[in-house]
Amino acid sequence: MPNLRKHANEIFEHVLDALNPEQLVKKKISIHDSTFLVEKREYNLNNYENIYVVGGGKACAPMASAIEELLGDRIDSGVIVVKYNHGLPLRKIETIEASHPIPDENGIKGTSKILSLLSKTGNKDMVICLISGGGSALLVQPHKEITLPAIQTTSAKLLICGARIDEINTVRKHLSSVKGGQLAMASYPSTLITLILSDVVGDPTDIIASGPTVPDESTFEDACEIIQKYSLEDKIPNSIYRFLNNGKIGKIEETPKTGNEIFKNTQTVIVGSNRIALKSAEKKAIDLGYNTIILSSLVEGESREAAKFFAAIAREVSRTGTPVLKPACIIAGGETTVTIKGKGKGGRNQEFALSAALKISGCDGIVVLSAGTDGTDGPTDATGAIVDSNTCNNAKVKFRLKPEEYLSRNDSYNFFNKTGEHIITGPTLTNVMDIMISLVK
Amino acid sequence: MPNLRKHANEIFEHVLDALNPEQLVKKKISIHDSTFLVEKREYNLNNYENIYVVGGGKACAPMASAIEELLGDRIDSGVIVVKYNHGLPLRKIETIEASHPIPDENGIKGTSKILSLLSKTGNKDMVICLISGGGSALLVQPHKEITLPAIQTTSAKLLICGARIDEINTVRKHLSSVKGGQLAMASYPSTLITLILSDVVGDPTDIIASGPTVPDESTFEDACEIIQKYSLEDKIPNSIYRFLNNGKIGKIEETPKTGNEIFKNTQTVIVGSNRIALKSAEKKAIDLGYNTIILSSLVEGESREAAKFFAAIAREVSRTGTPVLKPACIIAGGETTVTIKGKGKGGRNQEFALSAALKISGCDGIVVLSAGTDGTDGPTDATGAIVDSNTCNNAKVKFRLKPEEYLSRNDSYNFFNKTGEHIITGPTLTNVMDIMISLVK
Repeated sequence: MPNLRKHANEIFEHVLDALNPEQLVKKKISIHDSTFLVEKREYNLNNYENIYVVGGGKACAPMASAIEELLGDRIDSGVIVVKYNHGLPLRKIETIEASHPIPDENGIKGTSKILSLLSKTGNKDMVICLISGGGSALLVQPHKEITLPAIQTTSAKLLICGARIDEINTVRKHLSSVKGGQLAMASYPSTLITLILSDVVGDPTDIIASGPTVPDESTFEDACEIIQKYSLEDKIPNSIYRFLNNGKIGKIEETPKTGNEIFKNTQTVIVGSNRIALKSAEKKAIDLGYNTIILSSLVEGESREAAKFFAAIAREVSRTGTPVLKPACIIAGGETTVTIKGKGKGGRNQEFALSAALKISGCDGIVVLSAGTDGTDGPTDATGAIVDSNTCNNAKVKFRLKPEEYLSRNDSYNFFNKTGEHIITGPTLTNVMDIMISLVK
Repeated sequence: MPNLRKHANEIFEHVLDALNPEQLVKKKISIHDSTFLVEKREYNLNNYENIYVVGGGKACAPMASAIEELLGDRIDSGVIVVKYNHGLPLRKIETIEASHPIPDENGIKGTSKILSLLSKTGNKDMVICLISGGGSALLVQPHKEITLPAIQTTSAKLLICGARIDEINTVRKHLSSVKGGQLAMASYPSTLITLILSDVVGDPTDIIASGPTVPDESTFEDACEIIQKYSLEDKIPNSIYRFLNNGKIGKIEETPKTGNEIFKNTQTVIVGSNRIALKSAEKKAIDLGYNTIILSSLVEGESREAAKFFAAIAREVSRTGTPVLKPACIIAGGETTVTIKGKGKGGRNQEFALSAALKISGCDGIVVLSAGTDGTDGPTDATGAIVDSNTCNNAKVKFRLKPEEYLSRNDSYNFFNKTGEHIITGPTLTNVMDIMISLVK
């Protein structure tokens, strides 16, 4: 299946090209004389005294570069916080590099600079806020009564107590001065335009980077209830417990809710999402002569199990031409999870590919590719893997590997390292989660 | 969503009607004067002296009834083995009821009668063999050197040692006088027509009811290797261990392989399968005005995880009209599994529905139904369950139930018992595994 493999790789490369954050920003905004067009909304730049650019996230540097190219000297100044080694040369916008996923003092420093910049803005100003994956760890500013180490201890306790991610976020938002709409609060009364590159399934703007510029429906009361629910009263720092309770009785300002005045002059635009990745994969597959089907951009759950469902569809296509006729390209995306039970090395995409390989084994003419659009998969140097109907048999015969055993010990990286079926791109400076592609002929 | 729920139920009822084994048999065979047409193959009944009907499986009585209706007095005699209380009044064909899933002496008695009947057949005779789910436990005849209790001990050891189902079947086939093509051996040199109602994902004829009438590619040597692989030499009865090793050195006749003379005058027809269930669901959904998509008839894996993938597609349809426009009916089938971790009561379809309910919660206008076509789901009196976007919220508000907790302790039956969302049909006398339907408006 050299052709199927070649085509799957070409489709993935096309997806990465289409996800270039600079291009994505330019597709959503444009400028004609003094008219600034953001999606379908027009702004007359003559009405604005100053334009500031702020933001945080791993992909913010290329997004900022696009804004500089479009608005040039109309930008007064700006500050963005990106992950170490994720900066780019910019003219007007200061880039501060900081730690991700564990926040550090540089993140606080950069966020302070942003808040201090925003404190000067007025109702004749425009603020453009750039948000992408990782923003939650990079845009970090503890409430003045608490410290970053205290927040980190609280996060760690929440993570191991079995709390759901939305519960953890509710607590985090209420310990921060920037998350949960508070960056919008700081920008008020300026006009605020937020451009988001989404790395969360379903593109929920209140969750991506902890929603710094959109309404937050959770409350201090909710946060206190979560602490009680998991019996963390005595496990989290006293300062945090006291702070949350002070918030509950109204001594600390709540995060802004829907309908709040501060959101009146705001616009929020998703410039890139998993769905865009899937659509561009579809376009390339059609060019290559495949019939296509996009299943969903909302795939979640255990990687190896999602792979079984995906493989079941590929096998049905192979057998009956349902739900799409051959030659077919089946496309899905999202972000799965791996429950680690073994001591191997891998990532969710590599595990997905290995599980799929076992299910398509022997069904001729099927290729499955799974890869992360950010270029990294788990704690490995691989982006993902590509497998076909012969992967498992080859592994057994040529390399004396037992695929089931590699899968059962979560050792997909070492499996593909031996079979040579890794996809390796290096970091891509973009991130809209993962894409899974199956070609069936 | 009263309409969506009503329609989902109507679609499932239509599926059950279409799966009536009597109707399924009549769709594949017909008779015109002396021409007996089986799928596309013609048999001139004038060329046959005697016609015998044999078989085993839970759905064999209605299948036999269809044969009696078609061939009437042309049938000389016959014997089928069905599960207790699964018999029907027949004129020419003797019905023996036996135990399932644990075989008993009645199963052996019935199988002996079949083998004794077949021993009389010659090359001027026709044998019609009816196979359906459960046939492996009902058609049971230990090799004459070993006993049923010894086989049962071996099966139990294999089941708990971690052996795969195909490995367990390899051993079982070599301990039997009827599985793995040996019923075809007994029918030889008659013309043999096998009609199969498939209850196995992908309809593999060598696995359904342990393939009594089709070639078996596994060997005594394979069986011995499996015993060694799981270090069962000292754990299984001595008689079994000795018997398998005697087979390995050629002292006992192998199961017949592909190309064997005995398969020359045989025809094997799948009269019913999961795909037929999905196609009939599609037909009814189209009649009700839905756009339809059949995803796959090969769904396997952990129920709750398969449900997440299925729900991700339903939500994508709801959001974007991909991969099918609303109002949409999404159809899948197969057989998932439940890894039991809690102490609750449930079945794979109820667990699928509960997991899906959590994922579609709050996404308006989505209904998900999951049900077993045999009318039973796990060790419960329910067939499956039907859920919608409000299921979880209703459960919380009206009944003070926590859906996540019911799911985590595998207690889907008690959850739906309280919300009143069970589907209950009672046993259907048919079985082509499960069907999952989502309606999205």
